[in-house]
Amino acid sequence: MTPGPTNVSTEVMQAMLHPIINHRGPAFAAAMDSLLIKAKNTFQTKGDVVVLTSSGTGAVEASITNLLRDGDSVLVTAFGEFGERLADQIQDVGATAIRVESEYGNTPTLDNVREAFEQNEELKALYVVSNETSTGASIKWLKEAGDLASKAGAFFVVDAISNFGGDWMPVDEYKIDICCAGSQKCLASPPGVSMLSISEKAKQFIVNNPPKRHYLNLPRYFKYAEKNETPFTPALPLYFALDRSLEIILDEGLDRVIERHAICANAFYSGLSEMGLKMFAKTEVRSNTVIAINYPEGVNDKEFRAKLDADYGVILAGGFGRYLGKLFRIGSMGVVGRYHVIATLTAIGMTLKKMGFEANVDGALSLSSSILSKLSRSA
Amino acid sequence: MTPGPTNVSTEVMQAMLHPIINHRGPAFAAAMDSLLIKAKNTFQTKGDVVVLTSSGTGAVEASITNLLRDGDSVLVTAFGEFGERLADQIQDVGATAIRVESEYGNTPTLDNVREAFEQNEELKALYVVSNETSTGASIKWLKEAGDLASKAGAFFVVDAISNFGGDWMPVDEYKIDICCAGSQKCLASPPGVSMLSISEKAKQFIVNNPPKRHYLNLPRYFKYAEKNETPFTPALPLYFALDRSLEIILDEGLDRVIERHAICANAFYSGLSEMGLKMFAKTEVRSNTVIAINYPEGVNDKEFRAKLDADYGVILAGGFGRYLGKLFRIGSMGVVGRYHVIATLTAIGMTLKKMGFEANVDGALSLSSSILSKLSRSA
Repeated sequence: MTPGPTNVSTEVMQAMLHPIINHRGPAFAAAMDSLLIKAKNTFQTKGDVVVLTSSGTGAVEASITNLLRDGDSVLVTAFGEFGERLADQIQDVGATAIRVESEYGNTPTLDNVREAFEQNEELKALYVVSNETSTGASIKWLKEAGDLASKAGAFFVVDAISNFGGDWMPVDEYKIDICCAGSQKCLASPPGVSMLSISEKAKQFIVNNPPKRHYLNLPRYFKYAEKNETPFTPALPLYFALDRSLEIILDEGLDRVIERHAICANAFYSGLSEMGLKMFAKTEVRSNTVIAINYPEGVNDKEFRAKLDADYGVILAGGFGRYLGKLFRIGSMGVVGRYHVIATLTAIGMTLKKMGFEANVDGALSLSSSILSKLSRSA
Repeated sequence: MTPGPTNVSTEVMQAMLHPIINHRGPAFAAAMDSLLIKAKNTFQTKGDVVVLTSSGTGAVEASITNLLRDGDSVLVTAFGEFGERLADQIQDVGATAIRVESEYGNTPTLDNVREAFEQNEELKALYVVSNETSTGASIKWLKEAGDLASKAGAFFVVDAISNFGGDWMPVDEYKIDICCAGSQKCLASPPGVSMLSISEKAKQFIVNNPPKRHYLNLPRYFKYAEKNETPFTPALPLYFALDRSLEIILDEGLDRVIERHAICANAFYSGLSEMGLKMFAKTEVRSNTVIAINYPEGVNDKEFRAKLDADYGVILAGGFGRYLGKLFRIGSMGVVGRYHVIATLTAIGMTLKKMGFEANVDGALSLSSSILSKLSRSA
């Protein structure tokens, strides 16, 4: 139950056993066509989708190195580890990253972004981390930010690695020019491939201003996409797995998948609060996919997580950087339903009790169960 | 039988089904440790090995962007499509690529490289494509080139994507500072991961001069390698598959694997010549892993390869760029033995006959069979 890589179903794992085929032949082109149709339906876009053989970091880097140049100014939301990384990456191509900040555990407001647009001219883009894996806080005003960026003539780029497929993200409707997603988070596929949705406007810019990069060179991907190929040898087994996982998501229904994520997150937050725990992120900005919890006084991080694993087989993540040892994080993503929530809550509560924290486990489980009853029977 | 991705054994495919684990936990660290030991044995190095979630192009790009900077001058062998790409990539970081060229189908000589070292001062590196997938020619003087580069105080970088594991490549003995390998060629693993061996000298330079790149940032890989981790989420199933394929290679014996590649290539060359076909590469520089054959007059590329696939289930590659339609290529790599050589030769000969070319199939098969008898019984 870490915030990625998440659990992968046997069905998706076995999709990797598809025979290795020639990536320059008709069988691959057919497979790629099928994968891209599903990917576009998941992004809810009429634009392009590019699948990279890389982790999510590669996709985010591609969104920067293909769009930004020396001298550009961009706004970037910074309210956690991944926002800071994003700002650093932007600076490294010679662009100026103007941070729209908030304290960790919160997010900047839409007003903060509006003011930043008013105070800065000729902004090339607005970069937003939609869900901070390090703090469990997420942006609730993506649609409105798309309107602001569009009015200012700026590109709108969303790093949605840890909540794409878990939160509503219709990229065309939200005017998102580039949206970055990873395979191993809410999409419940093995790690190693990532996706970018790219609007027609962003595509035109990128094609007319090709970057001096090779592996993450989007114009090449566009060129090869015309014949349903990739410019470099793709990670075939992971493409087949991603195809299967997107098929499963679209079969369940994207809206129902997202509702399932929201219900599970709500069950986690309610149960954990009932136990007497305090969440790291403010209530209004709580993530639907990453739950960050402050450790109660006296509970040691390493000891707690080792016991959880040893006694219950539940693996959670610790805190990042300055929050190492101060909080723990649950990935409530992908293959997640009543079984996972209840098992995880039980393990957390019982372990805290063993470590001397008087958690109200019964109350937590009964509250969470009633919330989880809103899930469809199969989830 | 294309020059990658090559056939992958069921054993290696099934290694991908290893449960998805947390890449920040002890189980992954143990797996990574085991993989790196095997990788170092395969590179025959006491230096570092980095495994990237990328195609071979990513590994080659990492060897350039981490080592070269604006203003550097480097020698690069250019005798095919991949050498040209390499030179372009070198130019794109602002370095000057001094091409050591030959006509396609041949390779530059060691004397050409020696002269280039004499004529140019302060060369930062020598880049060599050890095996040109586009022409079927390979460099036979790697060891001597290592001596030249070392004497000149230049780094020696080898793009061995299409013959690492098929030709002898002891990187420490050959004084290779960076050697790039792909998973999906001679190593007979699925595509999607690549490897670089890195000498202590190159590592020191890179750590002291970190590149402004993120995904292909080698200093970060070195840092995380200290705890047997990767800086970004690794393509777990492909790591497990690569571990298994390296184990199989080391069990067979690296020298025997390489001898098997040489015998199979020899059987191909002899059989194809006996049929009356002309090879594209000169005899002295013929590759042990990629066989490029000129089409006899009147044989149409698309028709020939489509018939091979339809009638015999054999898939071969065509020519690249200006050689499109003029030659076809066989990947004699990885899982290759008597069965694959005989089946492929038979399919080629019978198909050529059907298309009006009088191939001496009987003679070819009997000659090749006698060469293949040198293989160990299990191959």
